[in-house]
Amino acid sequence: MSSSSAAPAAKPPMRDALVAAAFQLFLERGYEQTTVDDIVTLAGVGRRSFFRYFPSKEDVVFPDHERCLADMSTFLTESAEDDEPVRRVCDAARLVLRMYAENPAFSVQRYRLTKKVPGLRAYELSVVWRYERALAAYLRGRFAGRPDGTLRADVVAAAVVAAHNNALRSWLRSDGKGDAGVAVDHALGYVQAAFGRPAHPRAITPLPEAGPAASGGERAEHPDDVVVLVTRRDAPLWRVVQEFETTLGRA
Amino acid sequence: MSSSSAAPAAKPPMRDALVAAAFQLFLERGYEQTTVDDIVTLAGVGRRSFFRYFPSKEDVVFPDHERCLADMSTFLTESAEDDEPVRRVCDAARLVLRMYAENPAFSVQRYRLTKKVPGLRAYELSVVWRYERALAAYLRGRFAGRPDGTLRADVVAAAVVAAHNNALRSWLRSDGKGDAGVAVDHALGYVQAAFGRPAHPRAITPLPEAGPAASGGERAEHPDDVVVLVTRRDAPLWRVVQEFETTLGRA
Repeated sequence: MSSSSAAPAAKPPMRDALVAAAFQLFLERGYEQTTVDDIVTLAGVGRRSFFRYFPSKEDVVFPDHERCLADMSTFLTESAEDDEPVRRVCDAARLVLRMYAENPAFSVQRYRLTKKVPGLRAYELSVVWRYERALAAYLRGRFAGRPDGTLRADVVAAAVVAAHNNALRSWLRSDGKGDAGVAVDHALGYVQAAFGRPAHPRAITPLPEAGPAASGGERAEHPDDVVVLVTRRDAPLWRVVQEFETTLGRA
Repeated sequence: MSSSSAAPAAKPPMRDALVAAAFQLFLERGYEQTTVDDIVTLAGVGRRSFFRYFPSKEDVVFPDHERCLADMSTFLTESAEDDEPVRRVCDAARLVLRMYAENPAFSVQRYRLTKKVPGLRAYELSVVWRYERALAAYLRGRFAGRPDGTLRADVVAAAVVAAHNNALRSWLRSDGKGDAGVAVDHALGYVQAAFGRPAHPRAITPLPEAGPAASGGERAEHPDDVVVLVTRRDAPLWRVVQEFETTLGRA
């Protein structure tokens, strides 16, 4: 398990060199045809250095997931009682997006590689599963004692992961063009509208602005927050205006 | 690929004998310690018979998933235009439950085995993923052309699978006691309430400022639809009203 909040600059250069060498070889000769020996030879280090950083060849393809899982776990543990739980797990999912968006070229390369190699797709499924269980475990704690607490926790966690991955994969398929943060915010907004606190049919839920990992909670300090207003299609206009004003504290 | 709708009675007895022999050995000496040779020796058949039915040792643990995936695919293909899509995928998920509930003792045995063997858990994740993609593919077709069609399809498919598995696993953990069908109906009812037609939110209609993927789409056919309006917190009221009216086709 790597340290939980290492800044990119603090990564050991040897680790970066191993990742770079591995990807150069994966692209040149294919993933299956590349051995750990090939990677360490190109990087100019010994085999033991490789295994100090990566338990297996698969792990060098996803070098930052362990750190990201640890960051997510810390983020969820530090949640306050008055954090709205669905918003909190959406913010936790944004940590994953941030990891991908830190290095678009690398993320797009890896996406293409993963699509081609069944073993890597299986590895990725297991990583996605670990993220989903981390979100579900947090929600199960928050929903404990409520009717259908574990059911709601599992469904919301799965919905958050699916929404995040829908937006992430669109962005990866577009070769990392456009703003991944905006796309993910939109997708997570859909899940918050379906499951977030002030229930139907008139929920108004502030979303953090496009930036990843914005922590929620605050209200009017950020005039450029996004507001999601849910209402019945046949609601009279005066009612919509009233809800909007009340929620923003303008009324 | 087995035939798509073989009734249990039509299964070849040799296939059943192989499954029974495999599980007897898995329970006696452990999954990893059991070879395909051990299984065929106990079943009194040749190696080629084993591989006629099962591509690998993992497949004998989940002998009915291929048939169930084929049944699900047929069921979704035969869907009519006026089937409510979310209800249809919930009914498709019930096919999986039925497979487990056909033989509770075997399902509980396998559940315990799968929890202990990492390779089987990875295999199971890949099977769950295939069910989820089958549901999502159907929903993507039904939601084609609607705003956020693929997003909604992916989120609903993930929610259905999570709800189904939450109820299924509770039932398996209780050693197959109680009525699995009732538990799964309840869990799927939660998803239908969140996403199904007559109930809660349906149309997500972002304002230009907020959504990356705001495309128009269907309008006022359903007066009890829920409208989701996304706007910046500092948007002037007249602008919100204008967007609301325009979106509903009232302006």
